[in-house]
Amino acid sequence: MASVLRGNCMIAQSGGASAVVNASLAGVLQEALQYEEIEEVYGAINGLTGVLNEDLVDLTEEKNKTVEGLLYTPAPALGSCRVRLKDDNKEDRQRVLEVFQAHNVRYFFYLGGNDSMSTADRINKSAQEAGYELRVVGVPKAIDNDLTHTDHCPGYGSAIKFLAALVLESGRDTESLSTAEPASVIEVMGRNTGWLAAGTALARAHPDEAPHIVLAPEIPFSEEKFIGELARCLTQFNRAVIVVGEGMRDAQGKYLSQVGGSFSKDVFERPQLGGICNVIRRIVEDKVGVKCKTSRIGLPIRSAGHLISRTDRDEAVLVGQSAVRAAIDGKSGYMVTLERESAASYQCKTGLAPLLEVASGERPMPREFFNDTGFYPSEAFLDYARPLIRGEVEVPFENGLPRYARLDRVVVDKVCLLREVPVGS
Amino acid sequence: MASVLRGNCMIAQSGGASAVVNASLAGVLQEALQYEEIEEVYGAINGLTGVLNEDLVDLTEEKNKTVEGLLYTPAPALGSCRVRLKDDNKEDRQRVLEVFQAHNVRYFFYLGGNDSMSTADRINKSAQEAGYELRVVGVPKAIDNDLTHTDHCPGYGSAIKFLAALVLESGRDTESLSTAEPASVIEVMGRNTGWLAAGTALARAHPDEAPHIVLAPEIPFSEEKFIGELARCLTQFNRAVIVVGEGMRDAQGKYLSQVGGSFSKDVFERPQLGGICNVIRRIVEDKVGVKCKTSRIGLPIRSAGHLISRTDRDEAVLVGQSAVRAAIDGKSGYMVTLERESAASYQCKTGLAPLLEVASGERPMPREFFNDTGFYPSEAFLDYARPLIRGEVEVPFENGLPRYARLDRVVVDKVCLLREVPVGS
Repeated sequence: MASVLRGNCMIAQSGGASAVVNASLAGVLQEALQYEEIEEVYGAINGLTGVLNEDLVDLTEEKNKTVEGLLYTPAPALGSCRVRLKDDNKEDRQRVLEVFQAHNVRYFFYLGGNDSMSTADRINKSAQEAGYELRVVGVPKAIDNDLTHTDHCPGYGSAIKFLAALVLESGRDTESLSTAEPASVIEVMGRNTGWLAAGTALARAHPDEAPHIVLAPEIPFSEEKFIGELARCLTQFNRAVIVVGEGMRDAQGKYLSQVGGSFSKDVFERPQLGGICNVIRRIVEDKVGVKCKTSRIGLPIRSAGHLISRTDRDEAVLVGQSAVRAAIDGKSGYMVTLERESAASYQCKTGLAPLLEVASGERPMPREFFNDTGFYPSEAFLDYARPLIRGEVEVPFENGLPRYARLDRVVVDKVCLLREVPVGS
Repeated sequence: MASVLRGNCMIAQSGGASAVVNASLAGVLQEALQYEEIEEVYGAINGLTGVLNEDLVDLTEEKNKTVEGLLYTPAPALGSCRVRLKDDNKEDRQRVLEVFQAHNVRYFFYLGGNDSMSTADRINKSAQEAGYELRVVGVPKAIDNDLTHTDHCPGYGSAIKFLAALVLESGRDTESLSTAEPASVIEVMGRNTGWLAAGTALARAHPDEAPHIVLAPEIPFSEEKFIGELARCLTQFNRAVIVVGEGMRDAQGKYLSQVGGSFSKDVFERPQLGGICNVIRRIVEDKVGVKCKTSRIGLPIRSAGHLISRTDRDEAVLVGQSAVRAAIDGKSGYMVTLERESAASYQCKTGLAPLLEVASGERPMPREFFNDTGFYPSEAFLDYARPLIRGEVEVPFENGLPRYARLDRVVVDKVCLLREVPVGS
């Protein structure tokens, strides 16, 4: 039996959007309201930035209707950030505890990817070092499906459901015009991993349907082999729909599509990528000699609330609920994971993994998730991915467009001394 | 009273995909089956190419279930082409009549945009010159909404419904991360007109929501003025979602984004465009100094069957039906148009416009459809566009993805002498 810890709860969201990240928020919120140990439920605006700035809202003031709406509303409703808590930033680490102490926060749930888990881990350690009783549990969110220790990440199923639908539909387009415009390249996100690109293979119900080639960063790009595979598709199908992950690299590990300009590095000093679809188009047109259309789906991949996977949505709620149960149960310093119970009839339960382990890892696709040529996901991958896109979620429409929820954001009075926190510190 | 003309009917589809182009096909087919004058209903595979090659299928053999499925299946189910019938190509013009005569085709319905209407016009004239009794009626389809003589084009409403949903959703994304990634550019199709870009303004229910700036080819691009407008948005909203049409030009009329390589001209010898989003991104990042994400939606714009506008779908059926009624009524050489009856309570009836007039025209957005600055659609445009995206269409899902129809394509025996037709002749 864990010792009973009474106090308030804080939820924050961090990192890029997903279509179900607010389903996790709803899961945490609704579950937190079930326990006597938890009194107030606060939300921090814009993740860690909101904690540091003491920008808090009272989530118990939200209408039930709004919370229901979170179940299909994409992109962090509390706002997000790209700020990490650094180990050597004692001032920020103390500030977090100061804000938590001032509001008697004893439960902290951080929703995000591996950068967010790193921050959650440091908050947990800071509290331990300061002897402040706090339970910190991370709630996973990653459309790119690259978190370790979990079978898959909430957000991924909806992202590939949307992408696979687009590839299915635009595959029909390319099919209808194969005499004039036989090739099409569709670029999707994926800096180091091909999970998103691979997921589009779910679109193919018959061997001649799109996508015909999937290029994933895990397989170093060989122009010669690609041209061979493309020629095979053009001969066999009279067309080729190629899906490519943005982070393609050559055999030497060099990105094929690093962008120039003022922002050639992102906030984490990683090379900024863009335009791999044009790199591939030039090969298709100049070396193979067929016309090639390009698409780069970009941001819409991660926020397509109008085409959410029911399975993904339900699991996003589940990981939120499980995080609260784990914390009530005395756990701290963990992220909730998804564990596939049986391959035959898909079912997932939740588990826990240490925040630090998740924070420092990134999970590429294993080699057995590609076929022998490396130009297509394997049956093993398709078996893995198929259940994740199952089921639809009904979204209310108004004037022809989805009607998404907005939090009322009832502000909590600040009680700490004001402090100017530089964003990105 | 028109004279009674008995014989067979042929339907063909041409040009780029739309989400409702098969709804028009179903409209023509179902209506054609109502009249005693029409015996067989043939489909030509891949538009004019199929007519020339005598690649015909018997559409009366299709299952009712398949025809119902056409009501939400995107991209030409009969296949399409980018081939035009040229005035000086007597051989092709004679060949069309030879095939029509061999199959006793007396009704020809061509579904497409202005290039297709040009072909339909020439087929109509060829028949007249040869004294072959034939009724030719065009059925409009143009996601870019650039056909003249019609209030709007079937296909447009669904395209902007889908695009507006993406901008709405990805606007939430940019909003949630405005402290780190405050700008986003979304590139959409539109070589000479901004109809598609402008349609995304329907996403904005409140003044601070996306899109914040809409760049349309009708308004020559001024970098200086754009930077001013962007600065205003960033000050006012802390973020800016910019939608841009691919065909942006400067004050001298030069495209800002012409691509290089082997295919720098398209099949109609027009400059091939691509990457205006990167041109805009460089201005945002290098000149204004804020980070900017890019998306280029590309082909998926025109085939998003999973998010069709009900109004658009119903009108696509209607123009198909009306084409048959006009032909039965003795009309030939016309395209069906949509006429808005009343601005207050939206309702459309159909009309007819001479094929030749539609073929030679292109309709830009009028100046009054932009606000004074030229950086946003006006209220007049929004009033025009709002009804076009209304209503949803239920699409059956299977294994998490839309289940679209496929024609059985029961082949009609060839009776003409074989002839090798070079594609693109």
